[in-house]
Amino acid sequence: MPRLEVVLAERSYGIEIGAGSWAERIARTPNLKSPLAVVVTNPTVHALHGAALEAALWPAFKRVEVREVPDGESSKHWPCVSWLCEELASMGAGRDVLLVALGGGVIGDLTGFVASIYMRGVRFLQVPTTLLAQVDSSVGGKTGINLPQGKNLVGAFHQPAAVWADSTVLGTLPAREYAAGLAEVIKYGPIADLAFFEWLEANMPRLVARDPQAIGVAVRRSCEIKAAIVAMDEREDGIRAVLNFGHTFGHGLERGLGYGALLHGEAVGIGMLMATRLSVAHLGLDNSYLDRLERLLAAAGLPTEVQGWSPQQLLAWMRTDKKAVAGAIRYVVIPKWGEAALASVADEAVLQVLDDTVRAMRG
Amino acid sequence: MPRLEVVLAERSYGIEIGAGSWAERIARTPNLKSPLAVVVTNPTVHALHGAALEAALWPAFKRVEVREVPDGESSKHWPCVSWLCEELASMGAGRDVLLVALGGGVIGDLTGFVASIYMRGVRFLQVPTTLLAQVDSSVGGKTGINLPQGKNLVGAFHQPAAVWADSTVLGTLPAREYAAGLAEVIKYGPIADLAFFEWLEANMPRLVARDPQAIGVAVRRSCEIKAAIVAMDEREDGIRAVLNFGHTFGHGLERGLGYGALLHGEAVGIGMLMATRLSVAHLGLDNSYLDRLERLLAAAGLPTEVQGWSPQQLLAWMRTDKKAVAGAIRYVVIPKWGEAALASVADEAVLQVLDDTVRAMRG
Repeated sequence: MPRLEVVLAERSYGIEIGAGSWAERIARTPNLKSPLAVVVTNPTVHALHGAALEAALWPAFKRVEVREVPDGESSKHWPCVSWLCEELASMGAGRDVLLVALGGGVIGDLTGFVASIYMRGVRFLQVPTTLLAQVDSSVGGKTGINLPQGKNLVGAFHQPAAVWADSTVLGTLPAREYAAGLAEVIKYGPIADLAFFEWLEANMPRLVARDPQAIGVAVRRSCEIKAAIVAMDEREDGIRAVLNFGHTFGHGLERGLGYGALLHGEAVGIGMLMATRLSVAHLGLDNSYLDRLERLLAAAGLPTEVQGWSPQQLLAWMRTDKKAVAGAIRYVVIPKWGEAALASVADEAVLQVLDDTVRAMRG
Repeated sequence: MPRLEVVLAERSYGIEIGAGSWAERIARTPNLKSPLAVVVTNPTVHALHGAALEAALWPAFKRVEVREVPDGESSKHWPCVSWLCEELASMGAGRDVLLVALGGGVIGDLTGFVASIYMRGVRFLQVPTTLLAQVDSSVGGKTGINLPQGKNLVGAFHQPAAVWADSTVLGTLPAREYAAGLAEVIKYGPIADLAFFEWLEANMPRLVARDPQAIGVAVRRSCEIKAAIVAMDEREDGIRAVLNFGHTFGHGLERGLGYGALLHGEAVGIGMLMATRLSVAHLGLDNSYLDRLERLLAAAGLPTEVQGWSPQQLLAWMRTDKKAVAGAIRYVVIPKWGEAALASVADEAVLQVLDDTVRAMRG
């Protein structure tokens, strides 16, 4: 099975990609040894994959416990953090406990955050069950919860002990959620790899059909790119911010339209179109990439337009983003397709691009 | 003013010890630069030292905010953490905010923990106002809060940007609290420095009289020893545990007798006597050190005995300690006065030593 190393000095770890036996993976990963494994999941994922994971864990651990938090983003909140910490303390979990995050980005972010603070840090294993989590949140060590004032305002950088990105679990994902994950896959093309973008253009029908081999290629290349960028800038002091391509606009849309109106990946897709339009207008990027990106998003089953916002409103929503707080907004732009950069852009120029977007959507 | 460097690669920082102007310290510490400083304190400390600190901060920061949490250990709990995080988000604090912990160990642990998780980590300045905090919790980067199941079960390793250990603020400490701080000062003798222990024997009257010069020497040597040990083992995987001399027994007493019956330092003092007795009985330590330690604790104004426990009870209380959870208790012992070691000791041997302690206390 393909294995990718994320190289971060003593915090390095491996990502195992593709189909395979969970029991064999445990046997192959010595740094998972622990007397107690605690699986954190939600009812939906537990029903689909809990039994298989627990069957694999039992032979390797003296004791396996499972704790469910509610489905959905509302679990990324203080009550779930304090409840999980107190559950761990009540079961006598020591510094050698292994937490296992079985689920999508919410479960991974929450479990990783609990792992980062329980007894000042314990190990955790990521078993991402959504495409989005496999190509995004399971790599990079960002964990966190939401505040009423914004998403991910509290958290920690805490690297997992290992990640198992299993393509077979993606078969049960709802179509809309799967497509949202493809938006983050597509992102890696413009920011880092023109050839991968072209591969996606040629292979999107296979990905949409959930061809396991194609998924394996896409997940692997996405994780490779993200891991390479994270290795350069683990704590996001600089270059790592290019991973936020499409996210400045996307987060603004998500927040402004109300979480749930657009899935995160859907908002990022539309945000990438806005950031690409900005790159065409102000950095001389060839206009053809805007069309190609739009076609690729559509082929992935993603929306390329959304109603319910005005340019002035969206700019205001973007200003309340964590990354914009107490400073100017930094935009991720694409001077050359396959290479990202960070730029400050005058509000007038951004509003002009958003006006163009509104016209194009009405068009 | 004496300055001590805590060397931890990119997390290194300085501790400034002794009397001095806070305004000058700010000017001398370039890594404190920030548009916004948020002081976290409690009503008692705020009344005593808030005005002086704020006066020093105002010229250096565009904006200074102050947030008070209630006096006492109950502030090391989830509600204060979530409230402070939401206050920071509401005031628009970005990743460049500087938190300032003005208070004792509770304020330092809470503020440091909030600093470790707000926006995945921001900087904080420790201004410890108790002797205990100056010689213990302000060095080493341990931050945390309590759970119903035990103290400090949740937290992070997060090093401060700087520590200002000002001897003048100790003048306002209640006598009992000051004496409790001396217990942690005394601890550094047996575990690391026989000469320092002898200096304390000779100079305890000056320390009790709060002679600023003597306090400066004691704080500096305590911080030096702690910093050297922490530099060897930042995340307490091994040798750092010797800093817990007296704490295994002491935490057991604190928890069993109810927090508040004994101050932490008082419990540690009695715990050090028990651990010394264990070292005499099982490692051949010369019996004279037990008498000398007892005399020194008494000279510092600390209790050397306490009622309300039995050997069996105390052992049970010790078992619920975080460090004992899911494993055997490791004792910090002193094979040679001035050199600590870690040892596993059979329960029977520990009970024998506790029986002897009970007899000695009755004697």
